[in-house]
Amino acid sequence: MKIGLLGHGVVGSGVRKIIDRQLSDETKQLEIVKILVKSEAEMTDARMTLDADDILNDPSIDTVCECMGGLEPAHSFIKKALQEHKNAVTSNKKMLAAFAEELFALAQENHVQLKYEAACGGGIPWIHELEHIQRIDEIHYFKGIFNGTSNYILTRMNNENKEFGAMIKEAQGLGYAERDPSDDIDGWDVRYKTVLSSLAAFHTIVDPEEIPTFGIRNITKEEIAFCHEHGYVCKLIGSGADHDNFVSIFVRPCFVKKEDVFASIPLNYNALECDSDTLGKAVFIGQGAGSLPTAHAVVQDLIAIAKHEHASMQTYEHKPVSAGDEQGVFYLRTKKTALFNPSLIDHRIGSDAFVTKKISFMDMRVAAESLNDESVFLAEVAE
Amino acid sequence: MKIGLLGHGVVGSGVRKIIDRQLSDETKQLEIVKILVKSEAEMTDARMTLDADDILNDPSIDTVCECMGGLEPAHSFIKKALQEHKNAVTSNKKMLAAFAEELFALAQENHVQLKYEAACGGGIPWIHELEHIQRIDEIHYFKGIFNGTSNYILTRMNNENKEFGAMIKEAQGLGYAERDPSDDIDGWDVRYKTVLSSLAAFHTIVDPEEIPTFGIRNITKEEIAFCHEHGYVCKLIGSGADHDNFVSIFVRPCFVKKEDVFASIPLNYNALECDSDTLGKAVFIGQGAGSLPTAHAVVQDLIAIAKHEHASMQTYEHKPVSAGDEQGVFYLRTKKTALFNPSLIDHRIGSDAFVTKKISFMDMRVAAESLNDESVFLAEVAE
Repeated sequence: MKIGLLGHGVVGSGVRKIIDRQLSDETKQLEIVKILVKSEAEMTDARMTLDADDILNDPSIDTVCECMGGLEPAHSFIKKALQEHKNAVTSNKKMLAAFAEELFALAQENHVQLKYEAACGGGIPWIHELEHIQRIDEIHYFKGIFNGTSNYILTRMNNENKEFGAMIKEAQGLGYAERDPSDDIDGWDVRYKTVLSSLAAFHTIVDPEEIPTFGIRNITKEEIAFCHEHGYVCKLIGSGADHDNFVSIFVRPCFVKKEDVFASIPLNYNALECDSDTLGKAVFIGQGAGSLPTAHAVVQDLIAIAKHEHASMQTYEHKPVSAGDEQGVFYLRTKKTALFNPSLIDHRIGSDAFVTKKISFMDMRVAAESLNDESVFLAEVAE
Repeated sequence: MKIGLLGHGVVGSGVRKIIDRQLSDETKQLEIVKILVKSEAEMTDARMTLDADDILNDPSIDTVCECMGGLEPAHSFIKKALQEHKNAVTSNKKMLAAFAEELFALAQENHVQLKYEAACGGGIPWIHELEHIQRIDEIHYFKGIFNGTSNYILTRMNNENKEFGAMIKEAQGLGYAERDPSDDIDGWDVRYKTVLSSLAAFHTIVDPEEIPTFGIRNITKEEIAFCHEHGYVCKLIGSGADHDNFVSIFVRPCFVKKEDVFASIPLNYNALECDSDTLGKAVFIGQGAGSLPTAHAVVQDLIAIAKHEHASMQTYEHKPVSAGDEQGVFYLRTKKTALFNPSLIDHRIGSDAFVTKKISFMDMRVAAESLNDESVFLAEVAE
């Protein structure tokens, strides 16, 4: 299978290395014939080009592999590739979460594959397993630690009593966090991954903006102390459950019990759980990012396309996000406690924090957002 | 695909239920046409028979599915099925570990498949994932909690300070443990599963008897107290690593650090880890037994055969088991401490237990077995 590689950064160069070494029977079926790079300086190989059309207009290329990141031009390139009857593999969660409806319709119309294993869960064969389980079962829910950077920060804060500010600087120094870390610490990255998980698990397309999303930006030593005192560990969790007329998806820090498997997920690892009819609860743990684990996931998609393993063409239903009957207990710290409806408070912790009664996460979102407090920290508390 | 089901107990009846409900496109490709049962009383369905030859001699049956357990007649039935050019799927770890060399040679000779997902890791897609990862990578090692019954006992002993004897009775009452619990508590079940994991991960056949195997039969509250005091949790672990001329496989209780993922695996769950070139460390957690999770694994094998997904026919190399350079630190409790070489002891714990210096597990096996103490308890101590 002839592949055009779009992007040669951390993931793209890993994909090139894995395919070029030709170590297995399966990777020997793959050949990268052209590679789009960003500058003359990166043109270290006869396959490299600065012009995407060299790839998108080349009829000998079966499959395009996008590892560029960002919304544009990644989206336009994938769109054109699908229109040109090329299969597409992407590691770009933000782009795919935003354009899933358009791109999957295009793939179906042009009878080609669009695959995204690397966009969700890095090296964990998460999308593959969700699809594999559905050969037999329906998936009821998924839940997991989807972001390695925030898990790295939370693990170190928990173990070493460090401040959030010092940890984010260290993560940036190590290359784990971007200069603008918002995607990782405000929960947006997890939001995109819950959108992609719903696609695979429930065949449902949701609007990312509808998903209540709380991050870890405002966590302090106070919360870590609260967790230690009550036998909890704080983790950033994304979850989703399927219902007839809606999906309930939610991204928020959780105070999980220290005996819980999620509590022991170290540093930059991810852990993803699903539950289904006959298989029951299954958890998958692996590196959520990194050049080679993510590139491994991309190459698995390419092999599946080369081997024609795709399931029958999938159709997706657009559904709204709602909380339904699902409720939780929440920890909230805010300078504006006086503005919070006291009938929803179970008990107070010091002057600026409290634990709520059971409340739906949609109601919690409205209550938290109406405080209009930029320093608010919210977490669900495991029962 | 027409299937003959051998055995209609816990797993076999689960397989029948999943296939008969015909819920997915994939299970609709499967049809159970005959079912071997043990007595007239079990003949509740027109497909049932008391004569295995009704299945093994039926040329319309493509695939035989063995869920009987035990060495014979399961082994003879599978052998005959393969000779009759039928694919075979088995959930029988003990039989397959004992006859792997003969049966895989027969499968190859007759150009049929022999699959065993359910024999190792219950509902965890462990064998599938080991094979899937090898589309790209070589597997370096595997390690895991392979036995749900012993994990149930250890979890309850750890959390509730119960005695081993009380826990084994309770597990028997719940149907988690057999009347003769030796396979589960003496490590034999884990031994068989490490043999099957080596088959899938390293394409290596080993003699089960060569694997040093220590169980949890002699664990007492003293060990649990030692673990609590030093931040450990005791788990029964099987592991394997591939080398050029040998494999190192070892089954033993381990005192793992309480922050370790393995420490948090609850009750009857299994957790299986592997490490490979580009994917790195991956951990899979799920129900290690139970009618439907195990039956799910059997049906996944049947679907893979129906879809002709088999990799190229695998050949297996027979290798000896050796420790190589691998060393560990061990906790040992014995009434015969005086017989143990004192130069290997790092420090003593009370009058009848001690922690060794670093020592190879093959040397540890020889030293422990030469004590000839039926009440000896041995565990590896994580560093």
